[in-house]
Amino acid sequence: MTEPRRRPGRPRDTSIDERALAAARELLVQRGFDATTIQAVAEHSGVHASAIYRRWPSRIELIEEATFPGLSPLSVRPTGDLGRDLGRFVRAYLAAFSTPAARAAAAGLLAHHQTSDRTGPPEVYVRMSARPLFQDILRAAPPGTVDPAVDPDDVFDMLLGAVLTRTLLFSATARARPVERTVEMILRLLRPA
Amino acid sequence: MTEPRRRPGRPRDTSIDERALAAARELLVQRGFDATTIQAVAEHSGVHASAIYRRWPSRIELIEEATFPGLSPLSVRPTGDLGRDLGRFVRAYLAAFSTPAARAAAAGLLAHHQTSDRTGPPEVYVRMSARPLFQDILRAAPPGTVDPAVDPDDVFDMLLGAVLTRTLLFSATARARPVERTVEMILRLLRPA
Repeated sequence: MTEPRRRPGRPRDTSIDERALAAARELLVQRGFDATTIQAVAEHSGVHASAIYRRWPSRIELIEEATFPGLSPLSVRPTGDLGRDLGRFVRAYLAAFSTPAARAAAAGLLAHHQTSDRTGPPEVYVRMSARPLFQDILRAAPPGTVDPAVDPDDVFDMLLGAVLTRTLLFSATARARPVERTVEMILRLLRPA
Repeated sequence: MTEPRRRPGRPRDTSIDERALAAARELLVQRGFDATTIQAVAEHSGVHASAIYRRWPSRIELIEEATFPGLSPLSVRPTGDLGRDLGRFVRAYLAAFSTPAARAAAAGLLAHHQTSDRTGPPEVYVRMSARPLFQDILRAAPPGTVDPAVDPDDVFDMLLGAVLTRTLLFSATARARPVERTVEMILRLLRPA
């Protein structure tokens, strides 16, 4: 909530970030992953390449931030109705993975992470994991609806897998099953014995 | 069980298929997805390009068959111990997605399917879905361990998502959780209320 790094009179110019991110999204959709280089983003946005490099170490991090900005907490603020909250959460999550820019970037990012030496999970996973929101929903659920013995991280991993399968593996026209089925599965995982 | 299309004295030359498939796997690992063309496979295998085209309509189908040959039913023949059978099934499934050739091909195949106009699910999904094996395991489970009200296809979709997330999203060194956790989640989905 505090913003210790913003000093009066010297606000950070967030418009530079926004212009670079918007340009990256446009280039991804128009020209594809391979063509979305720092240089191309600089030309398309009018932001100097050196300014882009000051914010992102490479085009990968820029593309990840541009395409997976995360879920808005407000869009999924829990109501305490577990089934309804999970439904909204899954839909918001699917939507975030389904933007044209995210779809245009997904395979390229996966290929990059498959061949890179980085040992941690891809940033895109961390950024999009939305685990805190999921945990908020579980905390808001009425007593007795969530088994205290189940590990929320395990359930969240199953949910993430279902979302990824829907968005990465199937095109928009070939969704296998309605979202409600996924929500039902998550409810089954959570219910007490 | 019957083989109506094989006539005595005129066996199909399966060695041609095997040579092309093996060459495709080698090229994927050595040179990558983009370089694994029909022409390159022809040169590498000594099989004429026209013979390869007679079997596969494009390099995509060839690569899919080369990298995702499916699970061997024998490797996961059910014992009736649901937890143990599911553990073996998930491990065999993960292994099939984790070969060097499958890893080298995965992102390229995803990119292809993201941009293609095909409306059905990608062949790789159909080929690897292994739904029949999963259903065999459920049928072999002792009475009372699988909720008859749960749709096995819904559970299988969750399992597939978990497997894909482990293999596509995480490099070999960054697996998030032991396989046992995934098996536990599947058991939770199946248990009667």
